[in-house]
Amino acid sequence: MDNHGQDMYRLAKRLFPICRSITGDGVRDTLSILGEIVPLKTYEVPTGTPVFDWTVPQEWNIRGGFIEDENSKRILDFAWNNLSIVGYSEPVDQIVSREELLEHIYSEPAQPDAIPYVTSYYKRRYGFCMTENQRNALGNGPFHIVIDSELKDGALTYGEIILSGESQQEIFLSTYICHPSMANDNLSGPCLLIYLAKMLSELPRRRYTYRIVFIPETIGSITYLSKNYVHLKKHVVAGFNISCVGDDRTYSYVASRYGNTLADKAAKNVLSFHAPGYQAYSFLQRGSDERQYCAPGIDLPLCAICRSKYGEYPEYHTSLDDLTLISEAGLGGALEVYWKCLMGLEHNYCYRVTCLGEPQLGKRGLYPTLSRKGSANEIRTMTNFIAYADGTNDLFDISNIIHVPVDRLIEIADILRAGGILERMPEARTG
Amino acid sequence: MDNHGQDMYRLAKRLFPICRSITGDGVRDTLSILGEIVPLKTYEVPTGTPVFDWTVPQEWNIRGGFIEDENSKRILDFAWNNLSIVGYSEPVDQIVSREELLEHIYSEPAQPDAIPYVTSYYKRRYGFCMTENQRNALGNGPFHIVIDSELKDGALTYGEIILSGESQQEIFLSTYICHPSMANDNLSGPCLLIYLAKMLSELPRRRYTYRIVFIPETIGSITYLSKNYVHLKKHVVAGFNISCVGDDRTYSYVASRYGNTLADKAAKNVLSFHAPGYQAYSFLQRGSDERQYCAPGIDLPLCAICRSKYGEYPEYHTSLDDLTLISEAGLGGALEVYWKCLMGLEHNYCYRVTCLGEPQLGKRGLYPTLSRKGSANEIRTMTNFIAYADGTNDLFDISNIIHVPVDRLIEIADILRAGGILERMPEARTG
Amino acid sequence: MDNHGQDMYRLAKRLFPICRSITGDGVRDTLSILGEIVPLKTYEVPTGTPVFDWTVPQEWNIRGGFIEDENSKRILDFAWNNLSIVGYSEPVDQIVSREELLEHIYSEPAQPDAIPYVTSYYKRRYGFCMTENQRNALGNGPFHIVIDSELKDGALTYGEIILSGESQQEIFLSTYICHPSMANDNLSGPCLLIYLAKMLSELPRRRYTYRIVFIPETIGSITYLSKNYVHLKKHVVAGFNISCVGDDRTYSYVASRYGNTLADKAAKNVLSFHAPGYQAYSFLQRGSDERQYCAPGIDLPLCAICRSKYGEYPEYHTSLDDLTLISEAGLGGALEVYWKCLMGLEHNYCYRVTCLGEPQLGKRGLYPTLSRKGSANEIRTMTNFIAYADGTNDLFDISNIIHVPVDRLIEIADILRAGGILERMPEARTG
Repeated sequence: MDNHGQDMYRLAKRLFPICRSITGDGVRDTLSILGEIVPLKTYEVPTGTPVFDWTVPQEWNIRGGFIEDENSKRILDFAWNNLSIVGYSEPVDQIVSREELLEHIYSEPAQPDAIPYVTSYYKRRYGFCMTENQRNALGNGPFHIVIDSELKDGALTYGEIILSGESQQEIFLSTYICHPSMANDNLSGPCLLIYLAKMLSELPRRRYTYRIVFIPETIGSITYLSKNYVHLKKHVVAGFNISCVGDDRTYSYVASRYGNTLADKAAKNVLSFHAPGYQAYSFLQRGSDERQYCAPGIDLPLCAICRSKYGEYPEYHTSLDDLTLISEAGLGGALEVYWKCLMGLEHNYCYRVTCLGEPQLGKRGLYPTLSRKGSANEIRTMTNFIAYADGTNDLFDISNIIHVPVDRLIEIADILRAGGILERMPEARTG
Repeated sequence: MDNHGQDMYRLAKRLFPICRSITGDGVRDTLSILGEIVPLKTYEVPTGTPVFDWTVPQEWNIRGGFIEDENSKRILDFAWNNLSIVGYSEPVDQIVSREELLEHIYSEPAQPDAIPYVTSYYKRRYGFCMTENQRNALGNGPFHIVIDSELKDGALTYGEIILSGESQQEIFLSTYICHPSMANDNLSGPCLLIYLAKMLSELPRRRYTYRIVFIPETIGSITYLSKNYVHLKKHVVAGFNISCVGDDRTYSYVASRYGNTLADKAAKNVLSFHAPGYQAYSFLQRGSDERQYCAPGIDLPLCAICRSKYGEYPEYHTSLDDLTLISEAGLGGALEVYWKCLMGLEHNYCYRVTCLGEPQLGKRGLYPTLSRKGSANEIRTMTNFIAYADGTNDLFDISNIIHVPVDRLIEIADILRAGGILERMPEARTG
Repeated sequence: MDNHGQDMYRLAKRLFPICRSITGDGVRDTLSILGEIVPLKTYEVPTGTPVFDWTVPQEWNIRGGFIEDENSKRILDFAWNNLSIVGYSEPVDQIVSREELLEHIYSEPAQPDAIPYVTSYYKRRYGFCMTENQRNALGNGPFHIVIDSELKDGALTYGEIILSGESQQEIFLSTYICHPSMANDNLSGPCLLIYLAKMLSELPRRRYTYRIVFIPETIGSITYLSKNYVHLKKHVVAGFNISCVGDDRTYSYVASRYGNTLADKAAKNVLSFHAPGYQAYSFLQRGSDERQYCAPGIDLPLCAICRSKYGEYPEYHTSLDDLTLISEAGLGGALEVYWKCLMGLEHNYCYRVTCLGEPQLGKRGLYPTLSRKGSANEIRTMTNFIAYADGTNDLFDISNIIHVPVDRLIEIADILRAGGILERMPEARTG
């Protein structure tokens, strides 16, 4: 496979400057650029639409903002870093005292050089984010503070790609596109997913239909679920929430609520070979849209594979999560893991040997004709596959039992099926 | 909760001098004093009554007994310590040689200062118990030995308290009242249970009916089961055999036969938070009335929580198990653990969140309105509760999954239910 | 039990010189000698018979063979060691150059003093096996090479003993008789099995019918299965493949495909007491006829107990696996373990106590009449047995739960049944 590391990194660089939020033009611009790689359909859900227990909020757009000191010296500017304004800040244009200003300043004392990422989606306020060092260096004021933003009835925007397959059963892939200029969380997600979509779109055949969505986190997944719940419950056999897939420090896995879905099975199996020292997190450490996709009653068979997971790396949700944090290798490795999961799922059938007793591999040229100490070991993987191809084990089960990666087993299954020794069970197991 | 440590200790002190056995006036006197705290009903089951594979034995009473040496010097007296006469000793008044006497003396060589506790319920004999040092100091005799006891057709006496609740389903609490002057085993049991009964009786409402019994060990539980088997099998959802709950060295848990009843679940959960280093014993280490309550075909959902468990502390079944061994703190801690178990059971329902996807806690004032690094952690216990409130997990399950004690979860459940976000499933799970 | 160590070793010594292969007179001679100990029925399956995915091959016999150097000095002779000729070698009588000869020489560089065991059953070739040292000492030639063998349509020969029991349910015991002069693999197998058969034949009563077969490995088990499949599937409740049971270095266990059959249960239980440090192998380390007996769709409840298992000891499949490797003690220990498994199976019922609550053991003379500290421990095994005799646990379950070997439990079951306290459940559990 082409690991697309360079392509994904280049795309992240292009998308980085855009100020995204859960609604607004930043999302639209982002979707438009992603759509250049694989065409996607954009949806607009009006403000006020009830979505489960929630309501689609007003749309927020921002043109700029700054703080100037008593000498009209600009000490903070949205143009310098779009994390500088609290997300969903209401507009303001005021002269304020130092004390008044401080009530609207957010910084991170433990990381004095980092601008923190702060939002206030569901309560009207405004605020500025700066480094702790900047905060400490503030003069006596008064200060001129301006936020040129707009909150209005508008829409929540998301993008969707459907790649149809031979089956109506679906693999569901979701990522969020609502964070301003931060790289691992979350530009890495959409950059990886759009190239994954490209690779899937280029497959000569697809067993499954792929449903791929680019949405704002939480309110977006709730909105999407609310509109597609019945369909998703009926068709989705496995899914992944793709986020924080850009750095190259580790691999992580975030389990579904009970850790027992087909997606979990694929993720754990692939990671056990690709990155045996991967970090496993239970659903208690969840934090992204698996919160919605795996909520009680929703329970889609979905989990997440990350590199450094949200909340678990120091640069998380600060200006330090920039383009130096992610890498071509980091993105490429994550893409490879997801690809192995998807190809494993494409070939995931219960297999059954077609004869009683061991098949005579020798007469098919698959077994050494001379029997001596150790000669059986040469084709041990093949005979082990056959031994557990009893119609009850799917590809991941066999891989787990005989300790061989699924990509190798896919090759062997092809050889054995061509030799008439192996058959697929009529129905794929989906759990 | 009032931990009643002082009350329980004071009661133990008052009950200590009484000579109890599996039948007789010591039992009646003990029940009478317990009945001052919570009224109890006393039952008398006649000698000769067949109870399962057993028969209610004759009633035994003792007024006194002694050994005098050749100088009429009293070297042992029942009045000094009622462990000095073997339980169920037949009467005797004889002059015996040193050799004859020694055949009727029981001591504990490994604990030369302790008078051992010895009984012979089902074979007629008599005997004296003394310390190994006393035994070694015996003169040449002859000795005058007297036991002023009586074995006659009478009754086996036990006490019962029924505290009715909203449901006919019952919590069954049992302790034994058949040991003479020993504190941890077993005065601590009845002292704790009567105050537990008092606290239960004072509850403004009880979900369950509480069946609380004070019986002689083994023959008493067999007798009680024999009389109430059908009722107990039908109504009891959980129970505890309460014994050895007075010292403050450790907490112990004795599993039911398979360790998988609702009582086991409550006990293991509560102990895992209250006393994480508690000592777990399997049913192979049983020794009290769980032997009967968990016998094949009986199989009541019952286990035991102890402090230093019978058979596992050096003073066990000797005169060293006296009032210095138990403490207000020891009794109070055990009472607290049992209370947490019972309150957990009272609130033990399967819970279910009432909406699809996560509820919007913010609009109910339950979620920080400002989203920044770590802000979700503040209400992580609440969101974790919600995540596993899928209608299949009861309170103990959720506590085990999200690692939060049930007393905290009871508070959260009340908040969420008041907010309309959470509901109880119609039927409590009972296993 | 008579451990028959001496008998088995003596038999191995007598059978050692015979040149066995998967067909031919060596097999017939071996079966004839085994039949002296317990009569067995011999079957001949003609060459060309289709057996599942395989076909019975031609019969091979060999009278001799040698290599002579340019001075007519004999440097290798079949008469010296029958491993010297590759099994199923076609006849040859030629003068060959050093280079031509080397193409037909097999040696084991890592074990320079060992003649390796090599066969070519399903491809026509010829070859000689010698030590690496002999190979290195070969002169310039030319060499006269002779193999006086014959490949012809004939038969595959195997032996069978049926010892009928009270039930039509069967215990299936299989070993192979196809290796030339090697002791642990595999003379130890038939030597042990024929004496196990003798012991079984001498039992005053057998609960189960015993089906005991002596077959060539792989093609023999496939042939036997092919002829008896329906019967075996219907009647076999447990079985063992007996191989490599002669040395005294260790005990090993090779699991069935999922390790969960009644045979696995018996083997693991008995080994856990008899040889707690035994080496457990999964089915991934299989290598003998369990490959066929446990193949998908066959799935007989069968596993293997070995001493040093095939493939796991250095002398395996070389001339070093000779009579010095095995011992009377090694064979005797293995026989004892198999006997314990079989006797465990003979007594393997689900047991149930006949009364509610604990039975009163005292009135049956089974309990100490005096109760003092520790007195209950004396009969703890008996009371533990009773505690788990609830009709759902078979003998092996109870043994595993209460940590007491089945041979001891068989004695206790007899006492309790005689006392009317214990009964067998009508149907033995078979899995």
